[in-house]
Amino acid sequence: MVAAWHRAGDTVALVPTMGALHRGHLTLVQHACGLARHVIASVFVNPTQFGPNEDFSRYPRDEAGDAAKLVGAGCSLLYAPDAGEMYPPNFATTVSAGALAEPLENQFRPGHFTGVATVVTKLLLQSQADIACFGEKDYQQLQIIRRLARDLDIPIRIEAVPTVREPDGLALSSRNSYLSDDERRIAPALHRVLTDVAARFAAGASTQDVAAWGAAELLRAGFAKLDYLDLRDAETLQPLVDRSRPGRALVAAWLGKTRLIDNQALPPTKNAG
Amino acid sequence: MVAAWHRAGDTVALVPTMGALHRGHLTLVQHACGLARHVIASVFVNPTQFGPNEDFSRYPRDEAGDAAKLVGAGCSLLYAPDAGEMYPPNFATTVSAGALAEPLENQFRPGHFTGVATVVTKLLLQSQADIACFGEKDYQQLQIIRRLARDLDIPIRIEAVPTVREPDGLALSSRNSYLSDDERRIAPALHRVLTDVAARFAAGASTQDVAAWGAAELLRAGFAKLDYLDLRDAETLQPLVDRSRPGRALVAAWLGKTRLIDNQALPPTKNAG
Repeated sequence: MVAAWHRAGDTVALVPTMGALHRGHLTLVQHACGLARHVIASVFVNPTQFGPNEDFSRYPRDEAGDAAKLVGAGCSLLYAPDAGEMYPPNFATTVSAGALAEPLENQFRPGHFTGVATVVTKLLLQSQADIACFGEKDYQQLQIIRRLARDLDIPIRIEAVPTVREPDGLALSSRNSYLSDDERRIAPALHRVLTDVAARFAAGASTQDVAAWGAAELLRAGFAKLDYLDLRDAETLQPLVDRSRPGRALVAAWLGKTRLIDNQALPPTKNAG
Repeated sequence: MVAAWHRAGDTVALVPTMGALHRGHLTLVQHACGLARHVIASVFVNPTQFGPNEDFSRYPRDEAGDAAKLVGAGCSLLYAPDAGEMYPPNFATTVSAGALAEPLENQFRPGHFTGVATVVTKLLLQSQADIACFGEKDYQQLQIIRRLARDLDIPIRIEAVPTVREPDGLALSSRNSYLSDDERRIAPALHRVLTDVAARFAAGASTQDVAAWGAAELLRAGFAKLDYLDLRDAETLQPLVDRSRPGRALVAAWLGKTRLIDNQALPPTKNAG
């Protein structure tokens, strides 16, 4: 089908998802519709990117609802492979993203990004799309996918789409459905604190001071535990040393049994100290 | 150019090489010419598949001679990237082939197959070819490439081409040029012993006995050292237990400072013991 679209001179965009679609995913589809004549959405809850103690079995699933939402958003093709199709017997090949995949999430979800990089490589190649859209919400994942598409010469353009938020600032996530009412009231602090972190950094505070302040604020707001709150180079994800380069503040924190992540741009400062 | 060929409805085959072309490579090109309208040959001595103590710097190079030979053999396009094009700054992504890449060569050339799998993935994707031809001489490499193309859904057919040999049985290899006259006289024992190994195995001898016999014969013939002589399942490369499945005898042995490899099919036996 994609080959026929290409023969007709039409462009094709891919939006890979794990289903449980919310307005954030539909924004990706709408963004894709603006870039290409046809939009493919894939729905695949990839087992290889979940750790043994993570939420693979309880990850929210709603295939019928997802299909209706995708059609409504303008998607031309829904691709929902099963695990046996994606990983046939004797499947053995893996894609790794090197240093980009080592810090941050990888410290708490070892192996996660090898699962992501491998399945995304497969989806990009299976789809034969011209463009693929990914949300900035999963910022480290986005950088890894940009890198692997470039490094492996996959003939596709990776398009980043800004995070979609609730009116109170909470980034949309399928995992928000796990939150209790109390936890949901605390959750917006994640974005609020990151915004303040960016402002304090722009005003000249050190990365260490700002990160320590942000972590303390999140615990004070009611988060149970932080995995990390770090200020990093926006491209390499190494610790941010050169303030004249774009930075990114990234956070992962726990509310009860739910782990939330978010991130915030740190514009380069002209008068770098 | 490849896109234009495809638009015209023509098929394209790729023959990846490291240059220093001999009759074995040209057989690959001729084979490719029989399968596709256009043949691309790549010439790239890939630094990432050489170990720190291997022969990267002294690996034979002859770009002008290679180009003339390729044109003569029917190649339409010669692709000779430099290392900076293949591995731009911050290159980080690697492809690994899992269990297939663990035994045999990997025990003596750790990291070699990650280099091979990564560069071959890039070449397959860069070329956008329909078919890629690889020689059976590098049998473990061939199995890894078949697996990665399938596992990563690279839209290409991998075609295996039988090893080309000198009249005395020595498999053609760019590394044969390192051999002294004395070593060259000993080298054909590699193929002769593998042929006898296959005959003894077919006659019912155990894998252990046959492997031990073959190793002793090679040392007696004048080889300085063996890295391995193993009988393996031809698809999984695990130790050959089920004699009703196709097997493969694989060897790596040293003549002075030159390491030679070869392999031989072990047909499945109908009355498996």
